[in-house]
Amino acid sequence: MKVKIGDSVLEMKSVWYDAENRAVGFIDQRKLPHSIETYIANNYSEVAFAIKDMVVRGAPAIGAAAAYGMILGYYEKEPERAAEMLKSTRPTAHDLFHAVDHMLKSIREGKDPVEAAENYVMRTLDACERIGRYGNDLIDDGMRILTHCNAGALATVDYGTALAPMRFAHRDGKRIFVWVDETRPRLQGASLTAWELLNEGIEHAIIADNAAGHFMKRGKVDMVIVGADRIAKNGDFANKIGTYEKAVLARENKVPFYVAAPLSTFDLSIDSGDDIVIEERSEDEVLYAQDCRIAPQGSNARNPAFDVTPAKYVRGFITEKGVIKPKDIWKLRM
Amino acid sequence: MKVKIGDSVLEMKSVWYDAENRAVGFIDQRKLPHSIETYIANNYSEVAFAIKDMVVRGAPAIGAAAAYGMILGYYEKEPERAAEMLKSTRPTAHDLFHAVDHMLKSIREGKDPVEAAENYVMRTLDACERIGRYGNDLIDDGMRILTHCNAGALATVDYGTALAPMRFAHRDGKRIFVWVDETRPRLQGASLTAWELLNEGIEHAIIADNAAGHFMKRGKVDMVIVGADRIAKNGDFANKIGTYEKAVLARENKVPFYVAAPLSTFDLSIDSGDDIVIEERSEDEVLYAQDCRIAPQGSNARNPAFDVTPAKYVRGFITEKGVIKPKDIWKLRM
Repeated sequence: MKVKIGDSVLEMKSVWYDAENRAVGFIDQRKLPHSIETYIANNYSEVAFAIKDMVVRGAPAIGAAAAYGMILGYYEKEPERAAEMLKSTRPTAHDLFHAVDHMLKSIREGKDPVEAAENYVMRTLDACERIGRYGNDLIDDGMRILTHCNAGALATVDYGTALAPMRFAHRDGKRIFVWVDETRPRLQGASLTAWELLNEGIEHAIIADNAAGHFMKRGKVDMVIVGADRIAKNGDFANKIGTYEKAVLARENKVPFYVAAPLSTFDLSIDSGDDIVIEERSEDEVLYAQDCRIAPQGSNARNPAFDVTPAKYVRGFITEKGVIKPKDIWKLRM
Repeated sequence: MKVKIGDSVLEMKSVWYDAENRAVGFIDQRKLPHSIETYIANNYSEVAFAIKDMVVRGAPAIGAAAAYGMILGYYEKEPERAAEMLKSTRPTAHDLFHAVDHMLKSIREGKDPVEAAENYVMRTLDACERIGRYGNDLIDDGMRILTHCNAGALATVDYGTALAPMRFAHRDGKRIFVWVDETRPRLQGASLTAWELLNEGIEHAIIADNAAGHFMKRGKVDMVIVGADRIAKNGDFANKIGTYEKAVLARENKVPFYVAAPLSTFDLSIDSGDDIVIEERSEDEVLYAQDCRIAPQGSNARNPAFDVTPAKYVRGFITEKGVIKPKDIWKLRM
């Protein structure tokens, strides 16, 4: 992804493995958009911390971080403990489990863990690029696209899932406009998606999550594209809290609603969204906006981090194998 | 309303007229919930500022402020200019125009402006109390009620509109629980509604606006009650941005959706919501959360302050004349 620092534009990834120093590097997403800093993890515990504390977020980037973390676990001669610790960081992201199990298997089979991890990450990057190209086919010149949270390059090492089609459309010279849900409570839309679009030079406006329905009803939204954290066999999917609201509003206003996700996000072991565990995070994320206390002392909050959107609201899943209808997910060969 | 200050509990109104000092007093809502301060306006320009800068907000409280502001305009011997300035502060609130016109008429007819304003405000208080009693009849013991923004005592001088039924239910000993949408961008739910409920001792949890749909879908919301800024003849109504989203989600999840508003909020001169002008406020309200910048430098935002919810989503309007169905609004005699 492009990252503007002062007058220069760097080409960066959100997570990388530094073989020379046996370390995992991150763009520290807790610091964006106000400053661009890197976070270096020198052992698997620090990688686990980076995942848990949201230095890195987004299912595919978490998967990549976990794969690289397993390299460190291998060098620390504790791959099993590393696997356990990494898996315990975030309960909802399927990619995390996928990556750790892939690495454990490779290590047990005596394969080079660096090569195994880089192959895993390369598949993610390849998937995102293909998602970008398939999704681009759905975008016409002049379209106004709404997205929720950050399913961008930061979330997927590079390109993004939901943002990949927009990147490719923009690079193709299509004039697009993106409505960016700010995405309370952690504001990944306002702070991360807007930052990526700004770096990429894509026109956009940040809106309160409350305003998405208003603009849909006024005919100002041509399409919604979001990412996913886990997709069940029937097409129900978990994603950032508020995704369900946008999906209902999109259908009510006849706006096509797409989910962009690599095959690794599909979990055919679960039949429906009823089987997806929803993580509840600290109430402080709601009681504060960034560092500002917004609520009176003494008030409580509830903070589900994800919600489940039923398949009936989804027009299609944009994957590296093309655009798939919910009813065809069971045919996927993983 | 009850206001806890240290160990004592005061009985206060959100706006009052101080005849001795010819001044209008306000609980300064910009400072809540972190500190309780009053704002004193000594002339009509200061009242206009208080309305424009949201020292006072909520349609009925703005109406009361404007009525009191007209007393000052009368003493400053500029009632026509005062009327013009007060009307120019906020374009969406019908009560504002209603109050100013009522006062202008009284002044032209040679009536005592203090008495005219106090009569106007007393009608507001009486209406809110009746709304509270009618709304209370809809609430069963144990109900979990969702509300958006602040349609509480702060917004209506006392009692509230949407919060009045909850106050009366609680005073009747019903055990109720309130889901409080934080209500970005200005966070009136988290900062004001939660503060009122806390003072009143009503159990509640603040949630990100994104989470309302999730809790409705999980069967955790028994009823929605919101306020309104303007209601058209066909039952379409304008209220805080995000109200439309909650209404669509409530219908999708078969949760009864009520609007609590006095008759002064009904504007039978407009046929439908298409005729309601939506105020767009500064993009900084979205780019910041309170004083924290949340977006990168260079990103833009859009900030519609209200949206219009079509009548079909409304189960009933809770008014001082009882609960009215949208289709019966035309029968109202104002």
